[in-house]
Amino acid sequence: MELIQSPVELRARLVGAASVGFVPTMGFLHDGHARLIERASQENERVVVSVFVNPLQFGAGEDLSRYPRDLARDQEIAEQHGAHLLFHPQASVMYPEGFTSRIELGGPGEGWEGASRPGHFSGVATVVLKLLNLVSPTRAYFGEKDWQQLAVIRRVVRDFNLSVEIVGCPTVREPSGLALSSRNSYFTAEQRERAAILSRALRAAQNAYAKGERLSKRLLDTARMVLMSERELTLDYLALVDENLRPIEVISRPEGARLLIAACLFGVRLIDNMPLSENAHA
Amino acid sequence: MELIQSPVELRARLVGAASVGFVPTMGFLHDGHARLIERASQENERVVVSVFVNPLQFGAGEDLSRYPRDLARDQEIAEQHGAHLLFHPQASVMYPEGFTSRIELGGPGEGWEGASRPGHFSGVATVVLKLLNLVSPTRAYFGEKDWQQLAVIRRVVRDFNLSVEIVGCPTVREPSGLALSSRNSYFTAEQRERAAILSRALRAAQNAYAKGERLSKRLLDTARMVLMSERELTLDYLALVDENLRPIEVISRPEGARLLIAACLFGVRLIDNMPLSENAHA
Repeated sequence: MELIQSPVELRARLVGAASVGFVPTMGFLHDGHARLIERASQENERVVVSVFVNPLQFGAGEDLSRYPRDLARDQEIAEQHGAHLLFHPQASVMYPEGFTSRIELGGPGEGWEGASRPGHFSGVATVVLKLLNLVSPTRAYFGEKDWQQLAVIRRVVRDFNLSVEIVGCPTVREPSGLALSSRNSYFTAEQRERAAILSRALRAAQNAYAKGERLSKRLLDTARMVLMSERELTLDYLALVDENLRPIEVISRPEGARLLIAACLFGVRLIDNMPLSENAHA
Repeated sequence: MELIQSPVELRARLVGAASVGFVPTMGFLHDGHARLIERASQENERVVVSVFVNPLQFGAGEDLSRYPRDLARDQEIAEQHGAHLLFHPQASVMYPEGFTSRIELGGPGEGWEGASRPGHFSGVATVVLKLLNLVSPTRAYFGEKDWQQLAVIRRVVRDFNLSVEIVGCPTVREPSGLALSSRNSYFTAEQRERAAILSRALRAAQNAYAKGERLSKRLLDTARMVLMSERELTLDYLALVDENLRPIEVISRPEGARLLIAACLFGVRLIDNMPLSENAHA
């Protein structure tokens, strides 16, 4: 596997490839990323992983400077799981002096993370469009862990007429249920166990749904009950939304519905999401 | 030459082309467009002309509804000058229901047309990025008549890492000096003659520069004197700017400098621009 910093070199390396799979990441790779890379290598001739902690998607006071980084380890993991190229550009290359362009989206970027992190999805959409234009992949792979981000990216691809196929891949979890995230590295072992409460809350709502509950409010109350047992947790939002990220009141079409949660725990902001029923998405 | 309305078909027609030249237009083609198409056909294997009156770049109260249209004539002109495909998408295909994405640029999109037509360059940048992603051209051709637009498009290409080469082509003028524009069709023959005053004003500034004047204010005053002879004219802006579209006070590097003008005449908004010296750009 080759480490590449220059966009021009990256393009040169991909000339003539029959198919290119692309896994954009912010690095500090975990098993969730590994699954994306494996899938990309099953479905494409060449696989590019990018590692870029995108300053544009961090707000003032967020964790840009302390976001975990370990390029040597990322190289090993990417190579082990089938990547051919690891693209690691400098911020000054991605955003040269005088860079002022942004993508602004309404629609799926409004509300939830978009409301809690102003400018976040604009930064995500901008860097993803840049990276997709640079790599020109056949397919790009994203984790469902960032559910709203996935909807935003699908929208960018549609609205700006990119020809890439966006592949969403299931969230990978620890045995406790905690969704894998590079930010989990902020936790001590004990805090990490306790952070599984987000997934337990969503599972409780799933169980209520399985038992026949169809009112969104009651499902969410069930999840909220679970969350109350953790006094260190500050809930940001807990919602049941449709495929356009709009709140659902009564469940009529469960297929596109998604439970979303964001909360702060031990000073770390966590998000998670689940379908109403795991089987519906199996 | 083939007329194509569907983005999917357009892509299919371009598979395997060694090089693609692209001329995006709003239709009602004139000799300026013809020169762009000719140049594209000299430099590329396949030539795509698009005709799309982009609603996103018109403000409220602007001339979207009365903008001149004549697709049959456009087809003839495009074919005569070497186009292979004419892409004419419906607005509902370019902007399906729920389309809310926009590109926002600062930099070269600020001031001048950006100030007089809020949202205009955001609309231009958005549609151009869409079209460039759809066509994936080797080279795209734009007239220098829309000088600031050309700067905006170069910025979009740079900031979003497109691999297309942007080719700016000289403004084509009537014998009177009037820059060709589809909007000239709004004029009667007499008004059209009188509209040449914009180019005469810029030429006067060029002459003053040739005679040694190096103060921007004095050059612009010379142009302003010419404009005063037309009482029907309302000046929007008249400026001398550098390559970043910033006003110049004293001319030190004439190469990137450009005289810009926008004015309203007989209810029609006109723009024009010239270098300080034609020879510098010959």
